[in-house]
Amino acid sequence: MNNMDRLHEAVLEKGNVCVGLDTAAEYLPEAARVKFSSAGEAVFAYNKALVDATLDAAACYKTQIAYYESLGLDGLAAYSRTLAYIRERGGLVIADIKRGDIADTAARYATAHFSGDFEADFVTLNPYMGSDTLEPWLNMAEKTGKGAFVLVRTSNPGMNDLENRELATGGRLYDEAARIVCGLAERYVGVYGYGGFGAVVGCTENDAAAEIRAKYKNLFFLIPGYGAQGGGADTAAALLNSDGSGGVVNASRSILTAWRACPQCLTLEAAAAEGRRAALEMRRVISGCKR
Amino acid sequence: MNNMDRLHEAVLEKGNVCVGLDTAAEYLPEAARVKFSSAGEAVFAYNKALVDATLDAAACYKTQIAYYESLGLDGLAAYSRTLAYIRERGGLVIADIKRGDIADTAARYATAHFSGDFEADFVTLNPYMGSDTLEPWLNMAEKTGKGAFVLVRTSNPGMNDLENRELATGGRLYDEAARIVCGLAERYVGVYGYGGFGAVVGCTENDAAAEIRAKYKNLFFLIPGYGAQGGGADTAAALLNSDGSGGVVNASRSILTAWRACPQCLTLEAAAAEGRRAALEMRRVISGCKR
Repeated sequence: MNNMDRLHEAVLEKGNVCVGLDTAAEYLPEAARVKFSSAGEAVFAYNKALVDATLDAAACYKTQIAYYESLGLDGLAAYSRTLAYIRERGGLVIADIKRGDIADTAARYATAHFSGDFEADFVTLNPYMGSDTLEPWLNMAEKTGKGAFVLVRTSNPGMNDLENRELATGGRLYDEAARIVCGLAERYVGVYGYGGFGAVVGCTENDAAAEIRAKYKNLFFLIPGYGAQGGGADTAAALLNSDGSGGVVNASRSILTAWRACPQCLTLEAAAAEGRRAALEMRRVISGCKR
Repeated sequence: MNNMDRLHEAVLEKGNVCVGLDTAAEYLPEAARVKFSSAGEAVFAYNKALVDATLDAAACYKTQIAYYESLGLDGLAAYSRTLAYIRERGGLVIADIKRGDIADTAARYATAHFSGDFEADFVTLNPYMGSDTLEPWLNMAEKTGKGAFVLVRTSNPGMNDLENRELATGGRLYDEAARIVCGLAERYVGVYGYGGFGAVVGCTENDAAAEIRAKYKNLFFLIPGYGAQGGGADTAAALLNSDGSGGVVNASRSILTAWRACPQCLTLEAAAAEGRRAALEMRRVISGCKR
Protein backbone atom coordinates (compact mmCIF):
# COMPACT_ATOMS: atom_id res chain seq x y z
CA MET A 1 0.00 0.00 0.00
CA ASN A 2 1.49 3.30 -1.06
CA ASN A 3 -0.02 6.69 -0.34
CA MET A 4 -2.02 6.76 -3.58
CA ASP A 5 -3.67 3.51 -2.49
CA ARG A 6 -4.49 5.11 0.85
CA LEU A 7 -5.91 8.13 -0.95
CA HIS A 8 -8.05 5.90 -3.17
CA GLU A 9 -9.47 4.21 -0.06
CA ALA A 10 -10.06 7.58 1.58
CA VAL A 11 -12.06 8.72 -1.47
CA LEU A 12 -14.22 5.59 -1.40
CA GLU A 13 -14.86 6.09 2.31
CA LYS A 14 -15.11 9.87 2.60
CA GLY A 15 -15.76 11.30 -0.85
CA ASN A 16 -13.75 13.52 -3.15
CA VAL A 17 -13.20 16.67 -1.15
CA CYS A 18 -9.65 17.90 -0.62
CA VAL A 19 -9.63 20.71 1.93
CA GLY A 20 -7.15 23.35 0.77
CA LEU A 21 -5.38 24.86 3.76
CA ASP A 22 -4.22 27.96 1.86
CA THR A 23 -4.66 29.71 5.15
CA ALA A 24 -4.01 33.44 5.46
CA ALA A 25 -4.46 35.19 8.81
CA GLU A 26 -7.23 37.31 7.29
CA TYR A 27 -9.23 34.14 6.66
CA LEU A 28 -9.86 33.86 10.41
CA PRO A 29 -12.65 35.72 12.21
CA GLU A 30 -10.98 38.87 13.56
CA ALA A 31 -12.18 38.28 17.11
CA ALA A 32 -10.34 34.95 17.11
CA ARG A 33 -7.29 36.14 15.21
CA VAL A 34 -6.29 38.90 17.61
CA LYS A 35 -5.82 36.42 20.45
CA PHE A 36 -2.63 34.99 18.92
CA SER A 37 0.89 36.33 19.31
CA SER A 38 1.77 35.82 15.63
CA ALA A 39 0.11 35.23 12.28
CA GLY A 40 1.69 31.79 12.13
CA GLU A 41 0.25 30.82 15.52
CA ALA A 42 -3.20 31.97 14.41
CA VAL A 43 -3.00 30.12 11.10
CA PHE A 44 -1.91 26.88 12.76
CA ALA A 45 -4.71 27.09 15.34
CA TYR A 46 -7.31 27.55 12.61
CA ASN A 47 -5.84 24.71 10.55
CA LYS A 48 -6.04 22.47 13.61
CA ALA A 49 -9.69 23.38 14.18
CA LEU A 50 -10.45 22.76 10.48
CA VAL A 51 -8.75 19.38 10.50
CA ASP A 52 -10.64 18.37 13.64
CA ALA A 53 -13.89 19.45 11.98
CA THR A 54 -13.38 17.75 8.62
CA LEU A 55 -11.41 14.52 9.19
CA ASP A 56 -14.46 12.38 8.36
CA ALA A 57 -15.71 14.69 5.59
CA ALA A 58 -12.58 15.10 3.47
CA ALA A 59 -10.41 12.59 1.64
CA CYS A 60 -7.31 14.68 2.21
CA TYR A 61 -5.82 18.12 2.80
CA LYS A 62 -3.66 20.30 0.60
CA THR A 63 -1.33 22.91 2.03
CA GLN A 64 -0.31 25.68 -0.38
CA ILE A 65 3.16 26.56 0.89
CA ALA A 66 3.13 30.07 -0.62
CA TYR A 67 0.72 31.22 2.09
CA TYR A 68 3.13 30.03 4.79
CA GLU A 69 6.28 31.29 3.06
CA SER A 70 4.72 34.74 2.88
CA LEU A 71 4.78 34.79 6.71
CA GLY A 72 8.49 33.98 6.80
CA LEU A 73 9.96 31.61 9.39
CA ASP A 74 6.90 32.01 11.62
CA GLY A 75 4.72 30.83 8.74
CA LEU A 76 6.93 27.86 7.93
CA ALA A 77 6.82 26.76 11.55
CA ALA A 78 3.01 26.82 11.22
CA TYR A 79 3.33 24.88 7.96
CA SER A 80 5.47 22.22 9.64
CA ARG A 81 3.06 21.92 12.58
CA THR A 82 0.08 21.69 10.21
CA LEU A 83 1.59 18.80 8.27
CA ALA A 84 2.53 17.00 11.48
CA TYR A 85 -0.95 17.48 12.94
CA ILE A 86 -2.75 16.12 9.88
CA ARG A 87 -0.51 13.07 9.76
CA GLU A 88 -0.80 12.53 13.53
CA ARG A 89 -4.59 12.46 13.15
CA GLY A 90 -4.29 9.86 10.38
CA GLY A 91 -5.12 12.29 7.57
CA LEU A 92 -3.37 12.53 4.22
CA VAL A 93 -1.75 15.75 3.12
CA ILE A 94 -0.60 17.03 -0.26
CA ALA A 95 2.17 19.62 -0.06
CA ASP A 96 1.32 22.01 -2.88
CA ILE A 97 4.85 23.16 -3.62
CA LYS A 98 5.04 22.79 -7.44
CA ARG A 99 8.80 22.27 -7.35
CA GLY A 100 10.74 21.42 -10.48
CA ASP A 101 14.52 21.51 -10.71
CA ILE A 102 17.52 19.53 -11.94
CA ALA A 103 18.67 16.23 -10.54
CA ASP A 104 20.78 17.05 -7.47
CA THR A 105 18.50 19.87 -6.49
CA ALA A 106 15.42 17.69 -7.00
CA ALA A 107 16.90 15.11 -4.64
CA ARG A 108 17.37 17.82 -1.99
CA TYR A 109 13.79 18.95 -2.48
CA ALA A 110 12.59 15.35 -2.16
CA THR A 111 14.47 15.03 1.12
CA ALA A 112 12.90 18.31 2.24
CA HIS A 113 9.30 17.35 1.53
CA PHE A 114 9.30 13.57 1.94
CA SER A 115 11.05 13.62 5.35
CA GLY A 116 11.92 15.91 8.25
CA ASP A 117 10.17 19.11 9.31
CA PHE A 118 8.16 19.39 6.07
CA GLU A 119 7.24 15.74 5.58
CA ALA A 120 4.03 15.36 3.57
CA ASP A 121 2.29 12.36 2.02
CA PHE A 122 2.25 13.85 -1.48
CA VAL A 123 3.80 16.78 -3.29
CA THR A 124 2.92 18.67 -6.45
CA LEU A 125 5.61 19.00 -9.13
CA ASN A 126 6.24 21.15 -12.21
CA PRO A 127 7.40 19.26 -15.33
CA TYR A 128 8.75 22.18 -17.43
CA MET A 129 12.42 21.13 -17.20
CA GLY A 130 11.66 17.52 -18.17
CA SER A 131 11.52 13.99 -16.84
CA ASP A 132 14.98 13.99 -15.27
CA THR A 133 13.72 16.60 -12.82
CA LEU A 134 10.93 14.22 -11.73
CA GLU A 135 12.99 11.02 -11.48
CA PRO A 136 14.71 11.82 -8.15
CA TRP A 137 11.27 12.25 -6.57
CA LEU A 138 10.17 8.89 -7.93
CA ASN A 139 13.30 7.22 -6.57
CA MET A 140 12.54 8.48 -3.07
CA ALA A 141 8.79 7.86 -3.40
CA GLU A 142 9.32 4.21 -4.27
CA LYS A 143 11.32 3.73 -1.07
CA THR A 144 8.88 5.54 1.20
CA GLY A 145 5.44 5.02 -0.35
CA LYS A 146 5.05 8.74 -0.99
CA GLY A 147 3.15 10.13 -3.96
CA ALA A 148 3.15 13.13 -6.26
CA PHE A 149 0.86 15.06 -8.58
CA VAL A 150 2.55 16.56 -11.62
CA LEU A 151 1.14 19.68 -13.28
CA VAL A 152 -0.40 18.67 -16.59
CA ARG A 153 -3.31 20.91 -17.56
CA THR A 154 -4.40 23.78 -15.37
CA SER A 155 -7.49 25.94 -15.77
CA ASN A 156 -6.04 29.46 -15.38
CA PRO A 157 -6.25 31.72 -18.47
CA GLY A 158 -2.46 31.56 -18.96
CA MET A 159 -2.65 27.83 -19.65
CA ASN A 160 -2.96 28.75 -23.33
CA ASP A 161 0.50 30.35 -23.33
CA LEU A 162 2.49 27.11 -23.06
CA GLU A 163 0.56 24.12 -21.65
CA ASN A 164 -2.10 24.14 -24.33
CA ARG A 165 0.16 24.81 -27.34
CA GLU A 166 -0.15 22.46 -30.26
CA LEU A 167 3.03 20.57 -31.08
CA ALA A 168 4.48 20.00 -34.54
CA THR A 169 4.26 16.24 -33.89
CA GLY A 170 0.54 16.53 -33.02
CA GLY A 171 -1.22 16.87 -29.70
CA ARG A 172 -0.81 19.55 -27.06
CA LEU A 173 2.09 20.21 -24.79
CA TYR A 174 0.05 19.00 -21.81
CA ASP A 175 -0.39 15.65 -23.58
CA GLU A 176 3.38 15.31 -23.52
CA ALA A 177 3.43 16.18 -19.82
CA ALA A 178 0.74 13.54 -19.24
CA ARG A 179 2.76 11.03 -21.24
CA ILE A 180 5.77 11.63 -18.97
CA VAL A 181 3.61 11.19 -15.87
CA CYS A 182 2.15 7.97 -17.29
CA GLY A 183 5.68 6.67 -17.77
CA LEU A 184 6.49 7.37 -14.12
CA ALA A 185 3.14 5.95 -13.00
CA GLU A 186 3.74 2.67 -14.83
CA ARG A 187 6.97 2.16 -12.94
CA TYR A 188 5.32 2.74 -9.56
CA VAL A 189 1.87 1.20 -9.51
CA GLY A 190 -0.22 0.73 -6.39
CA VAL A 191 -2.49 -2.16 -5.47
CA TYR A 192 -5.52 -0.46 -7.02
CA GLY A 193 -3.86 0.10 -10.38
CA TYR A 194 -3.19 3.80 -10.04
CA GLY A 195 0.31 5.13 -10.43
CA GLY A 196 1.86 6.54 -7.28
CA PHE A 197 2.44 9.64 -9.41
CA GLY A 198 -0.73 11.32 -10.65
CA ALA A 199 -1.61 14.55 -12.41
CA VAL A 200 -2.90 18.00 -11.58
CA VAL A 201 -5.74 18.54 -14.03
CA GLY A 202 -8.17 21.42 -13.99
CA CYS A 203 -10.69 21.74 -16.77
CA THR A 204 -12.86 24.53 -18.02
CA GLU A 205 -14.84 22.43 -20.48
CA ASN A 206 -16.68 19.22 -19.63
CA ASP A 207 -15.89 17.59 -22.98
CA ALA A 208 -12.16 17.96 -22.52
CA ALA A 209 -12.51 16.66 -18.97
CA ALA A 210 -14.29 13.46 -20.02
CA GLU A 211 -11.72 12.90 -22.77
CA ILE A 212 -8.80 13.34 -20.38
CA ARG A 213 -10.38 10.97 -17.85
CA ALA A 214 -10.87 8.30 -20.53
CA LYS A 215 -7.35 8.72 -21.87
CA TYR A 216 -5.41 8.46 -18.61
CA LYS A 217 -7.15 5.67 -16.73
CA ASN A 218 -4.23 4.87 -14.45
CA LEU A 219 -3.62 8.45 -13.34
CA PHE A 220 -5.16 9.71 -10.14
CA PHE A 221 -6.11 13.38 -10.53
CA LEU A 222 -5.74 16.33 -8.23
CA ILE A 223 -8.43 18.71 -9.47
CA PRO A 224 -7.99 22.32 -8.34
CA GLY A 225 -10.11 25.41 -8.77
CA TYR A 226 -13.45 24.40 -7.28
CA GLY A 227 -15.55 27.15 -5.73
CA ALA A 228 -13.76 30.45 -5.18
CA GLN A 229 -11.64 29.94 -8.28
CA GLY A 230 -14.76 29.54 -10.40
CA GLY A 231 -14.61 25.83 -11.17
CA GLY A 232 -17.88 23.95 -11.33
CA ALA A 233 -18.92 20.66 -9.82
CA ASP A 234 -19.92 19.27 -13.24
CA THR A 235 -16.47 19.72 -14.68
CA ALA A 236 -14.80 18.28 -11.60
CA ALA A 237 -17.15 15.29 -11.71
CA ALA A 238 -16.37 14.72 -15.40
CA LEU A 239 -12.75 14.10 -14.37
CA LEU A 240 -13.82 11.27 -12.05
CA ASN A 241 -14.71 7.67 -12.87
CA SER A 242 -18.34 6.59 -12.97
CA ASP A 243 -18.06 5.24 -9.40
CA GLY A 244 -16.68 8.59 -8.23
CA SER A 245 -13.13 7.36 -7.80
CA GLY A 246 -9.98 8.54 -9.54
CA GLY A 247 -9.52 12.00 -8.15
CA VAL A 248 -9.82 14.54 -5.38
CA VAL A 249 -11.30 18.00 -5.86
CA ASN A 250 -9.69 20.84 -3.98
CA ALA A 251 -11.47 23.84 -2.50
CA SER A 252 -9.69 26.32 -0.30
CA ARG A 253 -11.24 29.74 0.23
CA SER A 254 -14.84 28.56 -0.05
CA ILE A 255 -14.19 26.29 2.95
CA LEU A 256 -11.76 28.51 4.89
CA THR A 257 -13.99 31.56 4.75
CA ALA A 258 -17.42 29.90 4.83
CA TRP A 259 -17.89 31.53 8.29
CA ARG A 260 -18.20 34.95 6.61
CA ALA A 261 -21.85 34.14 5.87
CA CYS A 262 -22.41 33.51 9.58
CA PRO A 263 -22.36 36.74 11.65
CA GLN A 264 -22.32 34.92 14.99
CA CYS A 265 -19.33 32.70 14.06
CA LEU A 266 -16.62 34.44 16.05
CA THR A 267 -14.50 31.53 17.32
CA LEU A 268 -12.20 29.21 15.39
CA GLU A 269 -14.41 26.26 16.32
CA ALA A 270 -17.52 28.00 14.98
CA ALA A 271 -15.66 29.02 11.82
CA ALA A 272 -14.36 25.49 11.34
CA ALA A 273 -17.90 24.12 11.77
CA GLU A 274 -18.97 26.36 8.86
CA GLY A 275 -16.00 25.00 6.90
CA ARG A 276 -17.22 21.48 7.63
CA ARG A 277 -20.68 22.43 6.42
CA ALA A 278 -19.20 23.80 3.17
CA ALA A 279 -17.11 20.65 2.67
CA LEU A 280 -20.13 18.38 3.22
CA GLU A 281 -22.20 20.42 0.79
CA MET A 282 -19.41 20.27 -1.77
CA ARG A 283 -19.17 16.51 -1.35
CA ARG A 284 -22.93 16.18 -1.82
CA VAL A 285 -22.96 18.33 -4.98
CA ILE A 286 -20.03 16.49 -6.58
CA SER A 287 -21.45 13.06 -5.83
CA GLY A 288 -24.79 14.17 -7.33
CA CYS A 289 -23.28 15.13 -10.68
CA LYS A 290 -23.76 12.92 -13.70
CA ARG A 291 -20.65 11.18 -14.95
CA MET B 1 17.90 52.18 -11.00
CA ASN B 2 16.31 48.77 -10.50
CA ASN B 3 18.14 45.62 -9.42
CA MET B 4 18.89 44.55 -13.01
CA ASP B 5 20.67 47.90 -13.50
CA ARG B 6 22.65 47.24 -10.34
CA LEU B 7 23.52 43.77 -11.59
CA HIS B 8 24.66 45.18 -14.94
CA GLU B 9 26.98 47.59 -13.11
CA ALA B 10 28.25 44.80 -10.89
CA VAL B 11 29.14 42.75 -13.99
CA LEU B 12 31.05 45.66 -15.55
CA GLU B 13 32.96 46.19 -12.31
CA LYS B 14 33.47 42.63 -11.06
CA GLY B 15 32.95 40.27 -14.00
CA ASN B 16 30.38 37.58 -14.72
CA VAL B 17 30.71 35.16 -11.85
CA CYS B 18 27.63 34.31 -9.82
CA VAL B 19 28.63 32.33 -6.72
CA GLY B 20 26.04 29.64 -6.16
CA LEU B 21 25.49 29.10 -2.46
CA ASP B 22 23.90 25.66 -2.88
CA THR B 23 25.52 24.89 0.40
CA ALA B 24 25.21 21.45 1.95
CA ALA B 25 26.87 20.67 5.29
CA GLU B 26 29.06 18.06 3.60
CA TYR B 27 30.55 20.81 1.43
CA LEU B 28 32.41 22.13 4.50
CA PRO B 29 35.73 20.70 5.69
CA GLU B 30 34.81 18.17 8.38
CA ALA B 31 37.12 19.68 10.97
CA ALA B 32 35.22 22.95 10.65
CA ARG B 33 31.76 21.43 10.33
CA VAL B 34 31.80 19.53 13.61
CA LYS B 35 32.19 22.76 15.60
CA PHE B 36 28.61 23.83 14.93
CA SER B 37 25.51 22.84 16.85
CA SER B 38 23.40 22.33 13.72
CA ALA B 39 23.78 21.86 9.98
CA GLY B 40 22.06 25.21 9.42
CA GLU B 41 24.53 27.01 11.69
CA ALA B 42 27.45 25.40 9.84
CA VAL B 43 26.01 26.26 6.42
CA PHE B 44 25.41 29.89 7.37
CA ALA B 45 28.94 30.27 8.79
CA TYR B 46 30.47 28.91 5.57
CA ASN B 47 28.23 31.12 3.42
CA LYS B 48 29.36 34.14 5.46
CA ALA B 49 33.02 33.23 4.97
CA LEU B 50 32.44 32.73 1.23
CA VAL B 51 30.66 36.08 0.87
CA ASP B 52 33.47 37.84 2.76
CA ALA B 53 36.01 36.16 0.47
CA THR B 54 34.29 36.87 -2.85
CA LEU B 55 32.48 40.22 -2.58
CA ASP B 56 34.95 41.89 -4.98
CA ALA B 57 35.28 38.82 -7.23
CA ALA B 58 31.65 38.00 -7.95
CA ALA B 59 28.85 40.01 -9.55
CA CYS B 60 26.24 38.32 -7.37
CA TYR B 61 25.21 35.27 -5.37
CA LYS B 62 22.55 32.67 -6.00
CA THR B 63 20.98 30.70 -3.19
CA GLN B 64 19.34 27.41 -4.19
CA ILE B 65 16.57 27.12 -1.62
CA ALA B 66 16.26 23.31 -1.99
CA TYR B 67 19.49 22.86 -0.05
CA TYR B 68 18.09 24.88 2.84
CA GLU B 69 14.61 23.35 2.73
CA SER B 70 16.21 19.91 3.02
CA LEU B 71 17.46 20.95 6.48
CA GLY B 72 13.96 21.97 7.59
CA LEU B 73 13.36 25.02 9.75
CA ASP B 74 17.01 25.12 10.82
CA GLY B 75 18.00 25.32 7.16
CA LEU B 76 15.51 28.04 6.35
CA ALA B 77 16.80 30.11 9.25
CA ALA B 78 20.26 29.76 7.66
CA TYR B 79 18.74 30.72 4.30
CA SER B 80 17.18 33.84 5.79
CA ARG B 81 20.43 34.85 7.51
CA THR B 82 22.41 34.24 4.31
CA LEU B 83 20.19 36.54 2.25
CA ALA B 84 20.31 39.21 4.96
CA TYR B 85 24.10 39.00 5.21
CA ILE B 86 24.68 39.32 1.46
CA ARG B 87 22.37 42.34 1.26
CA GLU B 88 23.91 43.90 4.39
CA ARG B 89 27.34 43.66 2.73
CA GLY B 90 25.98 45.40 -0.39
CA GLY B 91 25.92 42.24 -2.50
CA LEU B 92 23.14 41.16 -4.83
CA VAL B 93 21.39 37.84 -4.36
CA ILE B 94 19.21 35.73 -6.63
CA ALA B 95 16.80 33.44 -4.76
CA ASP B 96 16.76 30.31 -6.92
CA ILE B 97 13.25 29.20 -6.05
CA LYS B 98 11.75 28.49 -9.51
CA ARG B 99 8.23 29.20 -8.29
CA GLY B 100 5.28 29.25 -10.66
CA ASP B 101 1.66 29.27 -9.55
CA ILE B 102 -1.68 30.97 -10.19
CA ALA B 103 -2.44 34.59 -9.48
CA ASP B 104 -3.33 34.78 -5.77
CA THR B 105 -0.71 32.23 -4.86
CA ALA B 106 1.89 34.01 -6.99
CA ALA B 107 1.19 37.23 -5.10
CA ARG B 108 1.78 35.40 -1.79
CA TYR B 109 5.05 34.00 -3.15
CA ALA B 110 6.10 37.48 -4.28
CA THR B 111 5.44 38.80 -0.79
CA ALA B 112 7.46 35.89 0.61
CA HIS B 113 10.55 36.44 -1.54
CA PHE B 114 10.51 40.18 -2.24
CA SER B 115 10.03 41.17 1.43
CA GLY B 116 10.33 39.85 4.98
CA ASP B 117 12.51 36.99 6.23
CA PHE B 118 13.29 35.70 2.74
CA GLU B 119 13.80 39.01 0.93
CA ALA B 120 16.11 38.65 -2.07
CA ASP B 121 17.05 41.00 -4.92
CA PHE B 122 15.95 38.58 -7.64
CA VAL B 123 14.02 35.34 -7.90
CA THR B 124 13.87 32.59 -10.51
CA LEU B 125 10.44 31.66 -11.89
CA ASN B 126 8.90 28.77 -13.83
CA PRO B 127 6.64 29.76 -16.76
CA TYR B 128 4.80 26.44 -17.35
CA MET B 129 1.39 27.70 -16.19
CA GLY B 130 1.59 30.86 -18.33
CA SER B 131 1.99 34.61 -18.18
CA ASP B 132 -0.73 35.22 -15.59
CA THR B 133 1.44 33.34 -13.10
CA LEU B 134 4.32 35.79 -13.74
CA GLU B 135 2.32 39.04 -13.71
CA PRO B 136 1.88 39.27 -9.91
CA TRP B 137 5.67 39.14 -9.55
CA LEU B 138 6.06 41.92 -12.10
CA ASN B 139 3.51 44.08 -10.28
CA MET B 140 5.48 43.83 -7.05
CA ALA B 141 8.87 44.12 -8.80
CA GLU B 142 7.89 47.40 -10.44
CA LYS B 143 7.09 48.86 -7.02
CA THR B 144 10.23 47.64 -5.31
CA GLY B 145 12.91 47.54 -8.01
CA LYS B 146 13.25 43.77 -7.68
CA GLY B 147 14.08 41.51 -10.61
CA ALA B 148 13.44 37.97 -11.82
CA PHE B 149 14.88 35.36 -14.15
CA VAL B 150 12.34 33.16 -15.85
CA LEU B 151 13.24 29.62 -16.94
CA VAL B 152 13.51 29.57 -20.73
CA ARG B 153 16.00 27.00 -21.96
CA THR B 154 17.94 24.82 -19.57
CA SER B 155 20.79 22.46 -20.36
CA ASN B 156 19.74 19.30 -18.54
CA PRO B 157 19.01 16.24 -20.73
CA GLY B 158 15.27 16.47 -19.91
CA MET B 159 15.01 19.83 -21.67
CA ASN B 160 14.09 17.88 -24.81
CA ASP B 161 10.93 16.54 -23.14
CA LEU B 162 8.98 19.82 -23.15
CA GLU B 163 11.12 22.99 -23.40
CA ASN B 164 12.71 22.07 -26.69
CA ARG B 165 9.59 20.71 -28.42
CA GLU B 166 8.76 22.13 -31.83
CA LEU B 167 5.40 23.88 -32.00
CA ALA B 168 2.82 23.52 -34.76
CA THR B 169 3.07 27.29 -35.31
CA GLY B 170 6.85 27.05 -35.72
CA GLY B 171 9.68 27.58 -33.26
CA ARG B 172 10.33 25.77 -30.01
CA LEU B 173 8.42 25.91 -26.77
CA TYR B 174 11.30 27.81 -25.15
CA ASP B 175 10.93 30.50 -27.85
CA GLU B 176 7.40 31.04 -26.57
CA ALA B 177 8.67 31.25 -23.01
CA ALA B 178 11.26 33.80 -24.16
CA ARG B 179 8.55 35.77 -25.95
CA ILE B 180 6.54 35.97 -22.73
CA VAL B 181 9.61 37.15 -20.82
CA CYS B 182 10.35 39.76 -23.51
CA GLY B 183 6.81 41.07 -23.08
CA LEU B 184 7.32 41.46 -19.35
CA ALA B 185 10.78 42.96 -19.88
CA GLU B 186 9.43 45.61 -22.24
CA ARG B 187 7.01 46.81 -19.59
CA TYR B 188 9.76 47.11 -16.96
CA VAL B 189 12.94 48.43 -18.55
CA GLY B 190 15.95 49.64 -16.60
CA VAL B 191 18.26 52.56 -17.37
CA TYR B 192 20.65 50.33 -19.32
CA GLY B 193 17.96 48.95 -21.60
CA TYR B 194 17.62 45.52 -20.01
CA GLY B 195 14.29 44.32 -18.79
CA GLY B 196 13.97 43.93 -15.04
CA PHE B 197 12.86 40.40 -15.87
CA GLY B 198 15.50 38.28 -17.60
CA ALA B 199 15.86 34.64 -18.56
CA VAL B 200 17.53 31.49 -17.29
CA VAL B 201 19.40 30.14 -20.31
CA GLY B 202 21.85 27.29 -20.31
CA CYS B 203 23.27 26.06 -23.57
CA THR B 204 25.00 22.93 -24.63
CA GLU B 205 25.93 24.13 -28.13
CA ASN B 206 27.80 27.36 -28.90
CA ASP B 207 25.84 28.01 -32.09
CA ALA B 208 22.50 27.99 -30.31
CA ALA B 209 23.98 30.21 -27.61
CA ALA B 210 25.12 32.89 -30.06
CA GLU B 211 21.76 32.80 -31.81
CA ILE B 212 19.85 33.20 -28.55
CA ARG B 213 22.07 36.10 -27.45
CA ALA B 214 21.48 37.87 -30.78
CA LYS B 215 17.74 37.27 -30.68
CA TYR B 216 17.03 38.55 -27.15
CA LYS B 217 19.16 41.64 -26.84
CA ASN B 218 17.14 43.20 -24.02
CA LEU B 219 17.14 40.11 -21.82
CA PHE B 220 19.73 39.73 -19.10
CA PHE B 221 20.69 36.04 -18.76
CA LEU B 222 21.27 33.89 -15.74
CA ILE B 223 23.49 31.12 -17.10
CA PRO B 224 23.64 27.99 -14.93
CA GLY B 225 25.64 24.80 -15.17
CA TYR B 226 29.23 26.02 -15.24
CA GLY B 227 31.86 23.71 -13.78
CA ALA B 228 30.55 20.78 -11.78
CA GLN B 229 27.46 20.50 -13.97
CA GLY B 230 29.67 20.15 -17.05
CA GLY B 231 29.06 23.49 -18.74
CA GLY B 232 31.99 25.07 -20.56
CA ALA B 233 33.32 28.61 -20.47
CA ASP B 234 33.03 28.94 -24.27
CA THR B 235 29.31 28.27 -24.24
CA ALA B 236 28.73 30.59 -21.32
CA ALA B 237 30.72 33.30 -23.05
CA ALA B 238 28.70 32.86 -26.25
CA LEU B 239 25.64 33.95 -24.28
CA LEU B 240 27.30 37.26 -23.36
CA ASN B 241 27.65 40.42 -25.40
CA SER B 242 30.99 41.23 -27.04
CA ASP B 243 31.88 43.54 -24.13
CA GLY B 244 31.14 40.75 -21.65
CA SER B 245 27.89 42.24 -20.43
CA GLY B 246 24.40 40.77 -20.55
CA GLY B 247 24.62 37.87 -18.16
CA VAL B 248 25.99 36.20 -15.09
CA VAL B 249 27.38 32.67 -15.03
CA ASN B 250 26.66 30.56 -12.01
CA ALA B 251 28.98 28.00 -10.44
CA SER B 252 28.20 26.32 -7.17
CA ARG B 253 30.00 23.13 -6.24
CA SER B 254 33.24 23.99 -8.08
CA ILE B 255 33.53 27.05 -5.81
CA LEU B 256 32.03 25.59 -2.61
CA THR B 257 34.24 22.51 -2.64
CA ALA B 258 37.41 23.95 -4.21
CA TRP B 259 39.11 23.33 -0.83
CA ARG B 260 39.01 19.57 -1.46
CA ALA B 261 42.12 19.97 -3.61
CA CYS B 262 43.90 21.58 -0.63
CA PRO B 263 44.71 19.08 2.15
CA GLN B 264 45.73 21.78 4.64
CA CYS B 265 42.50 23.78 4.20
CA LEU B 266 40.75 22.82 7.41
CA THR B 267 39.04 26.06 8.46
CA LEU B 268 36.09 27.86 6.85
CA GLU B 269 38.33 30.83 6.09
CA ALA B 270 40.88 28.63 4.33
CA ALA B 271 38.10 26.85 2.42
CA ALA B 272 36.54 30.17 1.44
CA ALA B 273 39.93 31.41 0.23
CA GLU B 274 40.05 28.41 -2.12
CA GLY B 275 36.53 29.29 -3.24
CA ARG B 276 37.73 32.81 -4.01
CA ARG B 277 40.63 31.40 -6.01
CA ALA B 278 38.20 29.23 -8.02
CA ALA B 279 35.90 32.22 -8.65
CA LEU B 280 38.80 34.40 -9.83
CA GLU B 281 40.02 31.64 -12.14
CA MET B 282 36.50 31.19 -13.52
CA ARG B 283 36.22 34.95 -14.12
CA ARG B 284 39.58 34.95 -15.93
CA VAL B 285 38.65 32.00 -18.15
CA ILE B 286 35.26 33.45 -19.13
CA SER B 287 36.68 36.87 -19.90
CA GLY B 288 39.36 35.24 -22.07
CA CYS B 289 36.83 33.44 -24.28
CA LYS B 290 36.13 34.68 -27.78
CA ARG B 291 32.67 36.13 -28.33
